[in-house]
Amino acid sequence: MPTYSAPTKDMQFVLHDVLKVSQSDIPGYDELDPDFTSAILEEAGKLTSEVVAPLNVVGDKEGCRLENGVVYTPKGFKEAFEQVKEGGWTGLDMPEEFGGQNMPYVIGTAVGEFFSSANQAFTMYQGLTHGAASAILAHGTDEQKATYLPNMVSCEWTGTMNLTEPHCGTDLGLMRTKAVPQGDGSYKISGQKIFISAGEHDMADNIIHLVLAKIEGGPEGIAGVSLFIVPKFLVNEDGSLGERNGVSVGSIEEKMGIHGNSTCVMNYDEATGFLLGQEHKGMRAMFTMMNEARLGVGMQGLSQAEVAYQNALTYARDRLQGRAITGPEAPDKAADPIIVHPDVRRSLMDQKSFAEGARAFVLWGATMIDAAHRKHDADADGLVSLLTPVIKGFLTDVGYDMTVKAQQVYGGHGYVEEWGMSQFTRDARIAMIYEGANGVQALDLVGRKLAQDGGKHVMAFFDLVKTFIKENSGKDADFDAQFMEPLKNASKDLQAAGMYFMQNGAKNPNHALAGSNDFMHMFGHVCLGLMWAKMGLAAKEALANGASDVAFYETKLNTGRYYMARQLPATALHLTRIQSGADTVMALDAANF
Amino acid sequence: MPTYSAPTKDMQFVLHDVLKVSQSDIPGYDELDPDFTSAILEEAGKLTSEVVAPLNVVGDKEGCRLENGVVYTPKGFKEAFEQVKEGGWTGLDMPEEFGGQNMPYVIGTAVGEFFSSANQAFTMYQGLTHGAASAILAHGTDEQKATYLPNMVSCEWTGTMNLTEPHCGTDLGLMRTKAVPQGDGSYKISGQKIFISAGEHDMADNIIHLVLAKIEGGPEGIAGVSLFIVPKFLVNEDGSLGERNGVSVGSIEEKMGIHGNSTCVMNYDEATGFLLGQEHKGMRAMFTMMNEARLGVGMQGLSQAEVAYQNALTYARDRLQGRAITGPEAPDKAADPIIVHPDVRRSLMDQKSFAEGARAFVLWGATMIDAAHRKHDADADGLVSLLTPVIKGFLTDVGYDMTVKAQQVYGGHGYVEEWGMSQFTRDARIAMIYEGANGVQALDLVGRKLAQDGGKHVMAFFDLVKTFIKENSGKDADFDAQFMEPLKNASKDLQAAGMYFMQNGAKNPNHALAGSNDFMHMFGHVCLGLMWAKMGLAAKEALANGASDVAFYETKLNTGRYYMARQLPATALHLTRIQSGADTVMALDAANF
Repeated sequence: MPTYSAPTKDMQFVLHDVLKVSQSDIPGYDELDPDFTSAILEEAGKLTSEVVAPLNVVGDKEGCRLENGVVYTPKGFKEAFEQVKEGGWTGLDMPEEFGGQNMPYVIGTAVGEFFSSANQAFTMYQGLTHGAASAILAHGTDEQKATYLPNMVSCEWTGTMNLTEPHCGTDLGLMRTKAVPQGDGSYKISGQKIFISAGEHDMADNIIHLVLAKIEGGPEGIAGVSLFIVPKFLVNEDGSLGERNGVSVGSIEEKMGIHGNSTCVMNYDEATGFLLGQEHKGMRAMFTMMNEARLGVGMQGLSQAEVAYQNALTYARDRLQGRAITGPEAPDKAADPIIVHPDVRRSLMDQKSFAEGARAFVLWGATMIDAAHRKHDADADGLVSLLTPVIKGFLTDVGYDMTVKAQQVYGGHGYVEEWGMSQFTRDARIAMIYEGANGVQALDLVGRKLAQDGGKHVMAFFDLVKTFIKENSGKDADFDAQFMEPLKNASKDLQAAGMYFMQNGAKNPNHALAGSNDFMHMFGHVCLGLMWAKMGLAAKEALANGASDVAFYETKLNTGRYYMARQLPATALHLTRIQSGADTVMALDAANF
Repeated sequence: MPTYSAPTKDMQFVLHDVLKVSQSDIPGYDELDPDFTSAILEEAGKLTSEVVAPLNVVGDKEGCRLENGVVYTPKGFKEAFEQVKEGGWTGLDMPEEFGGQNMPYVIGTAVGEFFSSANQAFTMYQGLTHGAASAILAHGTDEQKATYLPNMVSCEWTGTMNLTEPHCGTDLGLMRTKAVPQGDGSYKISGQKIFISAGEHDMADNIIHLVLAKIEGGPEGIAGVSLFIVPKFLVNEDGSLGERNGVSVGSIEEKMGIHGNSTCVMNYDEATGFLLGQEHKGMRAMFTMMNEARLGVGMQGLSQAEVAYQNALTYARDRLQGRAITGPEAPDKAADPIIVHPDVRRSLMDQKSFAEGARAFVLWGATMIDAAHRKHDADADGLVSLLTPVIKGFLTDVGYDMTVKAQQVYGGHGYVEEWGMSQFTRDARIAMIYEGANGVQALDLVGRKLAQDGGKHVMAFFDLVKTFIKENSGKDADFDAQFMEPLKNASKDLQAAGMYFMQNGAKNPNHALAGSNDFMHMFGHVCLGLMWAKMGLAAKEALANGASDVAFYETKLNTGRYYMARQLPATALHLTRIQSGADTVMALDAANF
């Protein structure tokens, strides 16, 4: 069975050596000194590796079961969920007034990676609740907040997000779910929603569904979509649970992975709903949570790559097969461990350099979300908004590839379910799809975010990279050659791609959109290149300051060198593809495929 | 439920317009005129799409069941297998004297693609039998051939290949299964083999296991491995079935995919076995079939990409979501079909250009195997031996990526099992692993095949590309720019990589092996580039000759242009990685990962 060990030391390195969070002027960050964060991370690491991770395989094998309208989660989930709730982990970054601990989002994100690595399907129950609670926090009335948030922050009640219908997912303007005003401020909601994660289950007393629907007589299309709170049990004025609402689970989906999470078809049959936010502004209400939710999914890509890598590494150290080409390294054994083979190393280094780079990227993103929320930093908000589709799309695409690589290290043992590597691949697959399929992320990046506020945010990003390179070059020729030059080149490729879009997209927008996926990936590489340059500098600094754990920091430098030499140059290929334009992409009539 | 339609027209195009098989001097090819092959392909297309394909989902859902030592295949498999046998499909390219139809291997390969696309798990039963029969054909005594082949060619008896043991797969020298000579020419075989595809099932009267084992007292390691025939039921002298042999199924594996095929743990307990080929030359006996078996697996990569693509295309034409950025294309509908979106097109073109290029590559490989077998062409044998790891490794790696892309076109519907797209991905995953994991293919290519016969075969490949470019350039500037130049550049990249290995590998072999995976992939791209240039020329020729189906040939040209512009340039990235050498790959101590 696979195991998981929370990478607390790597996380501390990013938080303190790289991001230097406790020196930040973001309100609340001054409390984040290394001892404090270490205590949290160690505790979270213990819980996730000892309690949550062992249930991962159980959840996969058992799945969820629907019987007479009740969904039963896999054995052990309920008890573990109690432990998570008791530890206060579900409200880590929620306001104190609703029972949370008011910590910065960056801490919630760091801990979230551990949970997600340990058991993605399990963690989604609290993740969805967090998302729904955030929406109520941002858009709810005081009464709604008081009614729902305390129980949602503690996860006594869980939450869901209901967007997709059978005939529409991306294009929500086609939505058919209806809301009929009842005159008393409530609405009757009717329609069918599909792919509703944690839609129904046995781990909470109540489930608070957030449902997108169209108010009868409202505007056509997306402009007529509103967001509603539809509790499974209506809540009485005294806060006790009232009558059962008209919402029921139609079926649970059989999926490729995340079997431990109940993905439901939800039927709303004149269910009582309460408007959240303004009429017809449902999409806006959804979008305010989007950066956070998408960053969370990007983190899932990383989280599965991390845990799959950990197990692949263990296997590569244990499995004896063949001899090193440069001569036996374990002559006393029947064969060398396969980690001696260059191609196995290449695969492990791909995985390691991705996971560590991605971790820094996600945490950096989280600090920007904190800056936006806690100190109303519009620049940080704009930048993280630009980077969100990159975090989501790039990290889940590549994260998936990395789980496949980790699985491959096991050979045939990676294909049988016994070793658990197949599950990481199957679970990781969903992150490329939900919370906006990655093609939609690329479209959002190129079609919307690039030009947002007159292109201000992308210019800010390029400035940031340029300034970073300028300020940190010229002191160490080797470091410049190994880190700064590759970063400079990759950043130039990215700018050239942006320039191509500007020059050609105006004539024909297909020239931009045909390159959107490549652009998202090259942007991701530049971000990870930037993270590795920052991590490399931090490691050099630590070594220069006489850090005791020399091997740890040397390894950071070596892993960074690998990323720079082997991964970052991918930007050139993406640029070539982008510059080939839309002609070959769009040449065929649909009938001639 | 997904559907499958055999691409008979594309297959005919490759056989006749591109490879011009009926004009070849390979014995037996003169019979392969377009009408003849068309009749076979149409018939095979009908059988596979109507009978075999509908069982694909059934096999996945039901899987195989072990009860009291008996393995039951999914509902309908037995009846379909009867139809396949009755049609004579199992012995298409087997000698007439054993009941086969003696057709060239290229025809078996073409038909094999259809079968594998329709139902990979089902097709493996006959595929493994074909492999085992080929081994007996190549290495068996006349008596062994007479005893086993007629029933194996007809698939009344099926076959298996037993290599892997729990502690060894790639490094078979570590093998523990023992063979004890009995003095009467037979051996007693004892040991455990794992991952045995079609190891036990209910579709044949007898199962002929080919088992690698070490004869007691023989040489250590791989030099002491011999190959044995171990029938499930011993065969009496009159050909009737005798007593049950000491071989039994221990368990069947629960796998990520190919659920319809029974992957067994096989226990040999003093089972009677008969030496196949020479003592201690078991690996040689296995290797003579390797080109064929690995080409077959490479073809599986293509086959799953093809069927997944077909379904993604249908979905992209049907699913209405959003509007084309250049203006509505289906204004009468609520939204445009998603095939209008550039990023969906990019994905479909990736899939299409891969599947068609890969098909040509596989069939070209099959003609070389025919040339080697049927006219003892040593050059063809050397070239296909060089290309075999490329066909296996590249086509299954990329084939898998393509099934993931096809699945992605479905959004959330690709993740639920209902639509069948997850199965293509899960099934395709195995082809990267079995018949030598792809890392081993890359090692075989760079560590063995490149230098084979003094590097003669790789030089022959470069000459072939160079001559092709030279002979076909200078007549059409557009075609040269779109096809020939990219091919020339990619081929140069490949040569530069080979040069890097020569110059640096001698000093430190890790410099070569650290680039083996990239080399395999760039080699694959050059081969597909060559195929697309050939297909482009053939399409141009057909159009010049007044072919009536103009759209078909124009589409070939457009698809080729796409591959050349968007896929082939990947060689430059692979070269960059290779030229970065082994230093960053090997920098870490195993303990420091």
